Formats: sequence, structure tokens, C-alpha cells
Amino acid sequence: MTGAHALPIRIYYEDTDAGGIVYHANYLRFAERARTEWLRAAGFDHPRLLEEHAVMFTVRRCDAVFLAPARLDDEIRVETRIDRLQGARIHLSQTVFLDDRCLVTLAVELVLVDRRMRPVRPPPVLRGLLQAVPRT
Amino acid sequence: MTGAHALPIRIYYEDTDAGGIVYHANYLRFAERARTEWLRAAGFDHPRLLEEHAVMFTVRRCDAVFLAPARLDDEIRVETRIDRLQGARIHLSQTVFLDDRCLVTLAVELVLVDRRMRPVRPPPVLRGLLQAVPRT
Amino acid sequence: MTGAHALPIRIYYEDTDAGGIVYHANYLRFAERARTEWLRAAGFDHPRLLEEHAVMFTVRRCDAVFLAPARLDDEIRVETRIDRLQGARIHLSQTVFLDDRCLVTLAVELVLVDRRMRPVRPPPVLRGLLQAVPRT
Amino acid sequence: MTGAHALPIRIYYEDTDAGGIVYHANYLRFAERARTEWLRAAGFDHPRLLEEHAVMFTVRRCDAVFLAPARLDDEIRVETRIDRLQGARIHLSQTVFLDDRCLVTLAVELVLVDRRMRPVRPPPVLRGLLQAVPRT
Repeated sequence: MTGAHALPIRIYYEDTDAGGIVYHANYLRFAERARTEWLRAAGFDHPRLLEEHAVMFTVRRCDAVFLAPARLDDEIRVETRIDRLQGARIHLSQTVFLDDRCLVTLAVELVLVDRRMRPVRPPPVLRGLLQAVPRT
Repeated sequence: MTGAHALPIRIYYEDTDAGGIVYHANYLRFAERARTEWLRAAGFDHPRLLEEHAVMFTVRRCDAVFLAPARLDDEIRVETRIDRLQGARIHLSQTVFLDDRCLVTLAVELVLVDRRMRPVRPPPVLRGLLQAVPRT
Repeated sequence: MTGAHALPIRIYYEDTDAGGIVYHANYLRFAERARTEWLRAAGFDHPRLLEEHAVMFTVRRCDAVFLAPARLDDEIRVETRIDRLQGARIHLSQTVFLDDRCLVTLAVELVLVDRRMRPVRPPPVLRGLLQAVPRT
Repeated sequence: MTGAHALPIRIYYEDTDAGGIVYHANYLRFAERARTEWLRAAGFDHPRLLEEHAVMFTVRRCDAVFLAPARLDDEIRVETRIDRLQGARIHLSQTVFLDDRCLVTLAVELVLVDRRMRPVRPPPVLRGLLQAVPRT
């Protein structure tokens, strides 16, 4: 999976549940942290996107497959790759690893919207950068 | 959607984010609250399932489509229906409504596991009750 | 503790941690749910307060003492009482019970602020209602 | 505040609420992340403490004063200092900063407990390390 952006994340008590493992919904939060850092690595952040370009990302769809659990104090790694741009839509693949073991896969569809929540195409500067994000 | 179990949920500050809407991952938490109350309506609860039957539910897959956002102080409703039992797997459809408007749909696949996280078929009493849960 | 507002809250997986008990920070979320329902019982809600009166509540201080833990599937009860109004500040006592056992006590200081986050005295209608909230 | 342990934390959407600021209860989660990393810097982690020494930390009291809010994408810093050991109790001061501005102060009292949740004195190796943690 060379070329994907990778974010390490430590598992704290807040992330776990009484089953002794990470609460499943929290992987979606980890995935969003990873998307935010992937954007930052490309030179963008959410507040600036909203101020300068009047756009923000919303999650339109997330299909998560939970294969194995992470536990307290694990250091997991979230890998993020862009699959394709399609109008206002951005398709991403995100994978959560513990060492070399795949724990969770997420197929995510984002929609870029304006302040009124209407879909908009990425402004050119964002489009260029999204396409420049390394992929395999 | 007659026959589905319905759980009303109020949206509090904790559920929202700086976009002014419910943070997307929280719908998975609402969906699990609804599954828990759906089980309870069928006479079961998680601690008793673990103690008496040595089984628990884990989420194997969740495919969520986010159509429209809920906001602070909204009272949403989560409807839960069982689609089919298949060995250790239980397929559910869950839908989040605000009044008559569908906000989020979730296709959820649960796996029933034992204390060692190995898949197990539902014990007869649970199987009977799961099949007795009303559906359309 | 006659006269206090009481809100029942069910403990779900999302509320617990790998220690098998409710994660401590979540009691502050439960306390805010209880304050919101206490306000609603007095005829107010957050969106309307902001729209009609241009005010919102912020938490200035919270002193929480954790005496005993709640666990998965417990139904706890959060009792809320106003202690005193003092300019823009509202002092509350909140207590979390499991049956008759006190689990957590919270001394909370709220500040009413305007849209610019500046402290403001409660508008008369809110002041009257806050004072009418039953207490012992 | 020389000598305190410092942990940088980035604010993501999940941490904020509809008021546009970090939801107050989340500072308690950040404080626990900081305590965990402070322990790790001293050579300990929660799973190993439980396995090798059969002890864990519980939060007995947390008095939080919220002075100013953090916002989306801020990088805050949580500073942690031990104030004193007293039998099974550990008193800590934690402060959340944005650059040089103090946002939140937390006075935290931890109790070290065994697997049955009974208070226990720190085992010698932990006691030594806790006392070796740098302070002003």
C-alpha cells in the first residue's frame, strides 16, 4: 500500500468499551482524524477551506468492515488513499492496521458542499492538490 | 415500515459538531442504542446474554448512508428491523428519521460470538425470539 | 431530595470503557443531558434561547466526585437542582444515582453568555423560570 | 511550569459541538490521554500495570475550570504535574494551553485500586517512578 497517507493513533480508555475492545463507531472518528491529517499534508485545513473557499467536506457514505479489534494502549495506523474524484464527490479507501494486521476497512464517500450544504465541485487549487496526493 | 422497532432519541450538544449538525459517527452509536432496546423489547439484555448464554453481539459490518443531518434538540427516531439470520450472522436494516424524513440508513451485519470471540449460532431461545421480532 | 428534576439514563456500550465501567468523563455528558431536560421542563430549549433571547449557557466550572461506578445496562438517574443565581452565573447541584446509591456528585457553575461569549444576566422571562424551578 | 509533562493534542470535528467550540467534557478525555502519556514517559502503561502489578488508576475527583474555549483545528497542549502522593491517592494538576493562553485547569485526584476496586498503595517500583517525575 505504498503511497497512502498514514496516521498513527494511540488507543486510550475513552476509545474502548466494556467488551475490552475499541468501540466500533470510534473507527469512524479515527478515519476522520486521518482524512484531516491527509488534507493537512496536502496543504489544507478545514477552517481555511471554509474561510477562503467557502467549502467543507461532508460524509455521504461510509461502509465499514470490522475484521479484528484493537485494544487499550495499542498503537494503530490509519492509511488513507483517494480512489477517484467525481464532480463534488471524493471516494476514499481507508484501512486501519495494527502492525501488519488489517483491523478495519472503510470505503468512504465525501461530498464537498458550500455553506448552504449544496454540493460543489472542488475549486481548482483543491482539485489539483487532491489529484497530487500520492497513490499506488 | 410497520412492524419495525422504533426508539426516539433526543439530540444533545455532545452529539453535534462545529458544523452545527450531528457528528456522523454518532449515528452508529444511536443505532446501537436502538439495537439494545430492540433486544430488550424481545426480553434480552447484553449482561444476561453473556452470563446465561455466554454470547455477545459484535458488529461485523456497517454500511451507513447519510442523506440529511439532524441538529441540536431534534428528536429523531431509529427504526430497526431484522432482515435475516444466517448461522452466527444477523442482518439488520436500521433507519434514522426526523418526523417523516429519512436522515440515515444503516445496513448492519452482527456476528454472535462466544467469550473467545469465536462465531456461534444463536442459542435456541435467542433464535426463537429473534425470529419472533416483528417485521414487515 | 424532593423537588429536584430527575432524568433516567440507560447505560449503553458507548458509555463504558475497558475497565468494565462507565468512562468517567461521560458523567459530564449525562449531567448536560439532565440540565437540558431540566430547562425543557421549565419551558426552554437551547435553540430557542439562542434565537429569541440571543443567549446560551456555557459551563464555567464542574467539580465532579466519583464515588461508585455505573455499569453496562444500568439505568441511572440524574437529579438536578439550582442552588443560586448570581448575575450571569447559575450554580447547580447534580447527583447521579443508581437506585438509592449515590454514584457521582457534580457542582456545576454555568455562565449565561451572548453570541460573542460575553456574560449576560438572564433575561427576565428566564430569570423568573429559573427561580420557579422546584427545589427542596 | 518547567518540569511538567506536556502532550500536544489536535482538535478534530469529533471534539467540537454546535457552539463551534470544544465540548467541555472532552477536556477530561484529553487530560486522561495526557496522564497516560505521562505514565508512559515514566516507563508504565495501563495494561502492564494491571498484568504485572494488578493495579489500575481510577479517577476519584476532577475539578475543572473552563476559562476559554479551543476550536476546530487548534493544537492545544496539556501539561501534567504530580502534586502529592498520599496512600493510595495521587493528586495531579493539569492545565490545557493554546500557545501561552491557559484554557482549562484541572485538579485531579486518582486512586490506585486492585482488581476488586479496593484502594491500594502504589507498589514500590511505581512509587519510585511517580516521585521521580519532574516537577517545578
